[in-house]
Amino acid sequence: MHSERDFIRQIQQQARRARPDIQLGIGDDAAVLIPADGRHLVAMSDALVEDVHFRRRYVPAEAIGHKALAVNLSDCAAMGATPRFGLVSLALPPDAQFMAEGILAGLLALADQVNVALVGGDTSASRHGLFIDVCLIGDVPPGRAVRRSGARAGDVVFVSGSLGAAAAALQAFERQRPLPDPDARNRLLFPEPRLALGQYLAEQRLATAMLDLSDGLSLDLARLCEASRVGVSLDALALPIATAAYTVADHPEAARQLALDGGEDYELLFTVPPERADTVAALSEAPAVGGVRLTRIGNITQDLELKLCFAGETQPLPIRGYDHFAGPGDITRETADNGV
Amino acid sequence: MHSERDFIRQIQQQARRARPDIQLGIGDDAAVLIPADGRHLVAMSDALVEDVHFRRRYVPAEAIGHKALAVNLSDCAAMGATPRFGLVSLALPPDAQFMAEGILAGLLALADQVNVALVGGDTSASRHGLFIDVCLIGDVPPGRAVRRSGARAGDVVFVSGSLGAAAAALQAFERQRPLPDPDARNRLLFPEPRLALGQYLAEQRLATAMLDLSDGLSLDLARLCEASRVGVSLDALALPIATAAYTVADHPEAARQLALDGGEDYELLFTVPPERADTVAALSEAPAVGGVRLTRIGNITQDLELKLCFAGETQPLPIRGYDHFAGPGDITRETADNGV
Repeated sequence: MHSERDFIRQIQQQARRARPDIQLGIGDDAAVLIPADGRHLVAMSDALVEDVHFRRRYVPAEAIGHKALAVNLSDCAAMGATPRFGLVSLALPPDAQFMAEGILAGLLALADQVNVALVGGDTSASRHGLFIDVCLIGDVPPGRAVRRSGARAGDVVFVSGSLGAAAAALQAFERQRPLPDPDARNRLLFPEPRLALGQYLAEQRLATAMLDLSDGLSLDLARLCEASRVGVSLDALALPIATAAYTVADHPEAARQLALDGGEDYELLFTVPPERADTVAALSEAPAVGGVRLTRIGNITQDLELKLCFAGETQPLPIRGYDHFAGPGDITRETADNGV
Repeated sequence: MHSERDFIRQIQQQARRARPDIQLGIGDDAAVLIPADGRHLVAMSDALVEDVHFRRRYVPAEAIGHKALAVNLSDCAAMGATPRFGLVSLALPPDAQFMAEGILAGLLALADQVNVALVGGDTSASRHGLFIDVCLIGDVPPGRAVRRSGARAGDVVFVSGSLGAAAAALQAFERQRPLPDPDARNRLLFPEPRLALGQYLAEQRLATAMLDLSDGLSLDLARLCEASRVGVSLDALALPIATAAYTVADHPEAARQLALDGGEDYELLFTVPPERADTVAALSEAPAVGGVRLTRIGNITQDLELKLCFAGETQPLPIRGYDHFAGPGDITRETADNGV
């Protein structure tokens, strides 16, 4: 059995690396960090809770660590910011203490990839489930952070990558059915935050509003529209639905539902002024945005309605994303209805 | 039942206040903060886990919120830093959702007192226990953060306030016995971080090493000595043992054990060069240090031993603080033994 002290030592060894922006890393009461001149800070935190966000049955330790950091990096990407420092609080029940090393390895592997230093945190026993919370600190040039509230009527709505693969994998895991494909498993367990895309859009001032898709396109799009006080007309046939969603779903409409409401895509949803839309469309799969596909999926409207269009026919967009308190806390998200 | 969105709105309303150092507060993917010119950042996080750090049976919601922030403020105080921004991740089981408002009220009341802005976080359902993690960001003039590693042979060891009251209250709560006094209850449930003291010691360069007492004087002192590669001779008869510890303990020796090993004191332990010791002693209960008592409790030694002295007689200092992984996760800490 590792003691807390051994575990902290191990983190120190793996995380301690000379960086000019860290004066004092892990191991004291707090880290001492040197902010970059002339940049603003961004800060965010996001937790993963056992049997709400993951189950130990099918989520390996490395994926828990990876994802705990990735969901925060995804938020950072959605601001157009550069991540710098992470803090992790981990509470482990006795029968999960053996997972500590794997969780840490998964987290540090991703942190290395994106040049994030682990500078602090907390380890604790848990009498109940496994909890992991990551706080991420990054920075952004003044005035360049992309908010949710900047969308204007006429803006074109884009989404990165494809939608519904993580939800498809989740459904397969939960129902103990065969996985659609290995890529879908990775989309659920090891999501890749779209940092290059977010930073490029912010630097080039291409996005008027942006957020990352965690709770499902329909709910997250409703949040963007509410913050911007606009509506949207979403083109149902333009949605970049992942192949895995079709494999898992019983019929094409169910695949679309996974893409609209499934959640955990960790793609970026953003709006672009109409005169820049072609520029953005031409960036699809370009190295400058990390090679990720960019798809136009709709337009921002003056009225506050959220509409879903099928080749000319229009219906209200049903909002079926995930609300932690209103919903039953069901990991499959199937029964949660937020009613935004 | 409140929805997550209602809860986040409520946080926004209570937490949103115009501050020149906040460009974007709660409600987007991340907060955007403006670091103070010419200061370094400090960052830390610390979680409270149900039935490890508190029980719902005797810890009211307000105390959970207060304490989750206070334990981080105490770390901030131990660096001599000024707290600025807080992020909170909260996971609530269904039967604890009604506590959300109280937890938030307790946290925000303390945040207001110390001028900390709540700028982000995360709310989640929990299938298991209640979990709350706070990440705190503050700042400090360059070079002034007080580490654990600066103690030198000959330095005088000081501690603030009194020791053992929180442990006494915890023992009374756990054994369902009468509480020693209302002050002891507050020491356990609503600890007061020693921010004024920590900042004063750092500004005046009076402390060579400092940490806050969370896991018990014996273990935390061992940590300071290990980081500084020194030993200590602790004067058992000088310890500022809280009255409550005597009330709860069966005999005076047991009261001393509560003060030495009980933990959760959230006082500051610090070392002072011998030529400044009288200056520091004279600051005891002075307004500049927040009116808190300061007591000399020993001396740093060249050899690496940790010694406890009773009027001339010396014995090794037993280290009986709390280790989350090695110990059984017992809330009373009575059976945990770290063996540092």
